[in-house]
Amino acid sequence: MTAGVFISLEGGEGTGKSTQSKALSEKLEQKGYTVTVTREPGGTASAEVIRELLLTGAEEKWGIRTEAMLFAAARAEHCAKLIRPALVRGEWVICDRFIDSSRAYQIVNRELTDTDILALHAIGSRNLMPHRTFVLDLPEAVAAKRAAARDRGDSDRIGGRDSSYHQAVIANFRQFAADEPDRVRLIDASRAVEEITATLLASLNDLMS
Amino acid sequence: MTAGVFISLEGGEGTGKSTQSKALSEKLEQKGYTVTVTREPGGTASAEVIRELLLTGAEEKWGIRTEAMLFAAARAEHCAKLIRPALVRGEWVICDRFIDSSRAYQIVNRELTDTDILALHAIGSRNLMPHRTFVLDLPEAVAAKRAAARDRGDSDRIGGRDSSYHQAVIANFRQFAADEPDRVRLIDASRAVEEITATLLASLNDLMS
Repeated sequence: MTAGVFISLEGGEGTGKSTQSKALSEKLEQKGYTVTVTREPGGTASAEVIRELLLTGAEEKWGIRTEAMLFAAARAEHCAKLIRPALVRGEWVICDRFIDSSRAYQIVNRELTDTDILALHAIGSRNLMPHRTFVLDLPEAVAAKRAAARDRGDSDRIGGRDSSYHQAVIANFRQFAADEPDRVRLIDASRAVEEITATLLASLNDLMS
Repeated sequence: MTAGVFISLEGGEGTGKSTQSKALSEKLEQKGYTVTVTREPGGTASAEVIRELLLTGAEEKWGIRTEAMLFAAARAEHCAKLIRPALVRGEWVICDRFIDSSRAYQIVNRELTDTDILALHAIGSRNLMPHRTFVLDLPEAVAAKRAAARDRGDSDRIGGRDSSYHQAVIANFRQFAADEPDRVRLIDASRAVEEITATLLASLNDLMS
C-alpha cells in the first residue's frame, strides 16, 4: 500500500527514544534515504493541540475512556496528514511512540482492553502499523532515575504516574515483543547511545531497498 | 442499570432543539422531577474544550476520522462525568444532540460507517443510549432559513457545510426514526413552540414514574 518504511520507537519514560530517533534518522540520511522524525501524541500542528490537552493538567482532568479517544484522535490526524503522505512518497518515517504506547499504557487500569485500543486504531487510523517497532528496554528503576534526572521532577500528566503503573507499562511492551517478534524488537537500552543506534540500524537491513 | 431518564433532542440546524430542551425541562420540573439540561459537543468544562476545537477554525482543520474521534472523546467525558452520575441519582437528563448526531453527520461523506460510529460509542461511552430521542424535523429549506436568521451567517465549522450535506443529515435522522420507532420519534417542528413541547411531554408518559 505504501512505498516508504515506517519505524516506531517505544518504551517507558527516559529510555532514550527521542535520542535514538534522531541518531537513527542521521544514519539513514547518510545512506541516502529521506527521513521524517516525528512523535506522539502530536506530530502535526493540529495534533499538538490535542497533545497539550493530554499531557497538561491534573490526573483527573480526563476520564480513562476520554483519554484513550483523545490519543486516538491525535493519532488519526498524525496518520492522515503526516505519516501516510510521507510513506506514499516513499520516504522513511521514524515515530517516537505510536500505537503500542496506547496499547501499553491505556490497558494498565483494566478499564479498556487491547481489543478496544486496536478497534480505535482501526477506525481512527485505518490500522496503519509500523513495519518495525523498537522497544527500548530498561529496568524500571533505571528508567525512572533517568527520567527524573531529565525533567527534574516536572513530569507530565502521564509520566508522573506511580512506579507500579510504569512497571506494568514495561511488562506490556515486553509482551508485545514476545507476541510479534518480527515487527517488535526488544532492545537493551542500558548500553552506549552509539551501540544502540548500531543495533537498530542492523535490525533494519531487511527493510532497506 | 440507571434509575433516571435520559432524553436526547436531535435534528438539523435551526430546528429548535435548545428551545425545546429548556421548555421540556420546565414542564418536567413542574411535575417534580430534577432535570439537567445539557448539550453536545460539550456539556462539562473539559468536554467544552473539545467542543471549541471542533466547531471553530477551517473545514480542513481536522481530518474526517479525527473529527469523529474528537466527538466521541467529548461524549465519553460528558457521559462519565455528567450524564451517568445524574442518571444514577435518578434524575432526568435532556441532552441537545447526542450519539444520533454523530451517526447522522459523520457518515455523510461515506468515509466512516454507522457501525464505526457505534463502535466508538461502545468504547468511549459504554454504549449509553437515550431512553427516548426526539428528532425535530423541518424541511431543509425552512431549517436553513431559521439557522441563517439566528446566526446571521456566522455558522460554526459544521453548521456552515453546504445544503446537500445538511439534506443528507436530515435524511439520516428520518431513517433512524424509521429503524427504531420506540426510541426515536420524529416530531413535526414547523408548529408553534408550545404545541411541540406538549407533543414531547405526551410522548414521555410511558417513562414517567
